[in-house]
Amino acid sequence: MQFTGAQIAMMINGRLEGDGNAAVASFGKIEEARSGQLSFLANPKYEEFLYLTNASVIIINDSLELKQPVNATLIRVPDAYSAFATLLSKYQELMTQQLAGIQQPSYIADTASLGEHVFVGAFSYIGDHAVIGNGSKIMQGVVLGNNVQIGQNCMIHAGVKIYHDCVIGNNVTIHAGTVIGSDGFGFAPQADGTFKKVPQIGNVVVEDFVEIGANATIDRATMGSTLIKSGAKLDNLIQIAHNVEVGENTVIAAQSGVSGSTKLGKNVMMGGQSGIAGHLTIADNCKINGQSGVTKSLKEPNSSVTGTPAFDYSNALRSQAIARSLPEMEKRIKELEKMVRQLVEERVNAS
Amino acid sequence: MQFTGAQIAMMINGRLEGDGNAAVASFGKIEEARSGQLSFLANPKYEEFLYLTNASVIIINDSLELKQPVNATLIRVPDAYSAFATLLSKYQELMTQQLAGIQQPSYIADTASLGEHVFVGAFSYIGDHAVIGNGSKIMQGVVLGNNVQIGQNCMIHAGVKIYHDCVIGNNVTIHAGTVIGSDGFGFAPQADGTFKKVPQIGNVVVEDFVEIGANATIDRATMGSTLIKSGAKLDNLIQIAHNVEVGENTVIAAQSGVSGSTKLGKNVMMGGQSGIAGHLTIADNCKINGQSGVTKSLKEPNSSVTGTPAFDYSNALRSQAIARSLPEMEKRIKELEKMVRQLVEERVNAS
Amino acid sequence: MQFTGAQIAMMINGRLEGDGNAAVASFGKIEEARSGQLSFLANPKYEEFLYLTNASVIIINDSLELKQPVNATLIRVPDAYSAFATLLSKYQELMTQQLAGIQQPSYIADTASLGEHVFVGAFSYIGDHAVIGNGSKIMQGVVLGNNVQIGQNCMIHAGVKIYHDCVIGNNVTIHAGTVIGSDGFGFAPQADGTFKKVPQIGNVVVEDFVEIGANATIDRATMGSTLIKSGAKLDNLIQIAHNVEVGENTVIAAQSGVSGSTKLGKNVMMGGQSGIAGHLTIADNCKINGQSGVTKSLKEPNSSVTGTPAFDYSNALRSQAIARSLPEMEKRIKELEKMVRQLVEERVNAS
Repeated sequence: MQFTGAQIAMMINGRLEGDGNAAVASFGKIEEARSGQLSFLANPKYEEFLYLTNASVIIINDSLELKQPVNATLIRVPDAYSAFATLLSKYQELMTQQLAGIQQPSYIADTASLGEHVFVGAFSYIGDHAVIGNGSKIMQGVVLGNNVQIGQNCMIHAGVKIYHDCVIGNNVTIHAGTVIGSDGFGFAPQADGTFKKVPQIGNVVVEDFVEIGANATIDRATMGSTLIKSGAKLDNLIQIAHNVEVGENTVIAAQSGVSGSTKLGKNVMMGGQSGIAGHLTIADNCKINGQSGVTKSLKEPNSSVTGTPAFDYSNALRSQAIARSLPEMEKRIKELEKMVRQLVEERVNAS
Repeated sequence: MQFTGAQIAMMINGRLEGDGNAAVASFGKIEEARSGQLSFLANPKYEEFLYLTNASVIIINDSLELKQPVNATLIRVPDAYSAFATLLSKYQELMTQQLAGIQQPSYIADTASLGEHVFVGAFSYIGDHAVIGNGSKIMQGVVLGNNVQIGQNCMIHAGVKIYHDCVIGNNVTIHAGTVIGSDGFGFAPQADGTFKKVPQIGNVVVEDFVEIGANATIDRATMGSTLIKSGAKLDNLIQIAHNVEVGENTVIAAQSGVSGSTKLGKNVMMGGQSGIAGHLTIADNCKINGQSGVTKSLKEPNSSVTGTPAFDYSNALRSQAIARSLPEMEKRIKELEKMVRQLVEERVNAS
Repeated sequence: MQFTGAQIAMMINGRLEGDGNAAVASFGKIEEARSGQLSFLANPKYEEFLYLTNASVIIINDSLELKQPVNATLIRVPDAYSAFATLLSKYQELMTQQLAGIQQPSYIADTASLGEHVFVGAFSYIGDHAVIGNGSKIMQGVVLGNNVQIGQNCMIHAGVKIYHDCVIGNNVTIHAGTVIGSDGFGFAPQADGTFKKVPQIGNVVVEDFVEIGANATIDRATMGSTLIKSGAKLDNLIQIAHNVEVGENTVIAAQSGVSGSTKLGKNVMMGGQSGIAGHLTIADNCKINGQSGVTKSLKEPNSSVTGTPAFDYSNALRSQAIARSLPEMEKRIKELEKMVRQLVEERVNAS
């Protein structure tokens, strides 16, 4: 799909300088772009590339004063980066919206129900009574179990597996390889040392505007629902255990895990590789540092914690600094011991 | 599938109160259940919902004394929760047992051998000389390499990949997306800084009654077998390296990892996101706390360890408490230094 | 495929003792091998098994002096282990090279381009304008998005998903379930507490001779490329964020993660479950201990760090040792306080 400089200027409400017929079909960084590509210059540090690049069309800031003539067609806007990002976002939406139809071979149960403008990729499996809302795209090799509901305008990437009875809202994106609705890890210890499985008969509910990364796992509830609330963003390789609730607009970085029945409030942030123990409550707007392990509820909103077990961030930083000075601290104690021993001896001698 | 109150009472050996013909087709929590659903009341805290719920059939404790009339059909048993869990467990078994036949399209090599009552889902691949025992269910999009053996009554969920020559016992459950038999991470450093792959020609053996979570990885042995012994339970996103042995009934929580050639005893427990270094031995019944990193063998059965590097649990807790008081401890040292310095000066002055 | 003792002796340039017609079709450890299997004895500790094993052919060291007669055919070489590993490596290459052709059903876009001796497994999807180089093997259930390029002699294992526009070099191995090119985790916070997705329009470039483990995730760049350089080895369940660069021959053990825009030099080593924060630079040959969390750039080549936040390895070890003696250190301070208090009191009394 090609766009001319003039078309792009109209889309982003920019001011055209140069040949409005210059056409572009893809994007490139200004220092690497080839002829036929669109680029942008936001960071003044890269200005030199403006005069060297082969890009055909470049979005620049209104405020930029050219030091040399430029070959490319320029489009001036108040904020080049923001205009570029908006453009790309629109472009990707457009590309996704154009996906439609059923690739073959795929397997769609007779009792499944597909909305309008739905795409189902090859080798995808749609189980009995599954429902896919208008405009949702199911990429290749996806497995949707019986009774799975997918809302409208979702993007379910290749190889996602969603177990029976799980419910996905509208405008949800799930990246490749993620598993939703696997059994929670529940086993009752028996007298002979073996474990008996506790049936996991709940489901997972993912609300609107959630994005989930690649190869993540979200277990179904023992009963009721594991719940990912509206607007939450989950990164790759995340583990959400049974009966967890993730609050609205909460952000969880890669390789983090939340243990069973823990409830996260709104706008919580978990750094990468962090973990939270089971049956805890994390208040709104709390921040959990990367690799931290939270073992107690955080009842105060806006708390920041770090370490394992996690505790107050500023105290923890101070403790860490001192921890590093432990060897030196031990020397000081030794020195004190020596001096005090001497003082005591002198006193003894004196008496 | 519908059940009447009378049928359920018979199945769980309970005492019926009310309409034995009341029919249910699914389950719900007592505070959410709709008409046509079965529920239970175990926790007295929720008794109010007994009088409000729309559930059609409810399992309750023998000992419960009703404070108001109840619309639903009641079934009384000594322990409502346990009866309910047993019922669900039987129901899920039944549902699984009914799965049978080969969905199309699937790929089953001519030399593969399938037992009776086997199910193979669409888009699954069964390699040359693979063997699937009676009653095992291979869900959609599974890949079984050449010579893979699956025992009886296994449940292999969607998108599991098992590499060639691996052996799975009876009554094993493997959740979606898990990979079994990928190459161990073995590379020999070369003089020029590159690495030469060490061929990984062993396999993985998973014994009976093991359950493995979603998106886990278990590497094949360099030679011989990586071994997951009978009754072990492994959670999601776990990494088991080449030549590891996991003992009977050992339980490993999500996102934990065991490095190459380490042997875990029986009934070991690893908390979430914990790790064990390579070539170690962990005695029976040891407990490894969440996020701990074990760097030395635990030779004493029943040891509990925590931290990185992990050490004795009770000492570690005490050290952690003191670590948090480090800023205060430093103040005490400063104070001591000041006092001692003064004492020393006075002594000098006095002499 | 069968080989005789005489054939194997020729392949590894060894000296035959016994029946050159003894045939083997598989491999086994000397303590477990069955008739018809090839084994080796390198470690003198296992010599007893040489006289007990049922292996049909055994590779042994030139220097070994037999204490008893051996049933098996022997092949003597200077270094039995090395000869055995070489043999296996050749055998595996041979097996892989023999894979060729297109299994059905599979989906190969009309505009895709496949080289010679390519294998595509059943249920694999090759998108528009994708290119697969000579000799590369795409196993079952793989999804290659539009414009994906795979070089020559690659092995892409079952269920790998590679998003559009990513580029894989020559002689690359990617294990089952790994996802390459999923969106980087980029969201701009909005005034109302929600997050707006930052379009991720770059790609992933994996250079030659890289090996990537199972169920790993490598995100595409926001712009430009996430880059895995030549010879790097990445283990299972690893997370590589957007715009990261992994240097040549860098080795990353399982469940480790690298945050956005961080650059790793050459021959860096990351232990299992370690993490690196975003926008850092790690110099060549640095070593990051297992479970460490690196929060600052390591500018000095050959640095070794450990802990969270990670710092100098030898200091850290000393601090850890002292941390364990904290309870005892506190006692010493108490003792000092008592003595000093007494000294001060005496002085007060004396004056």
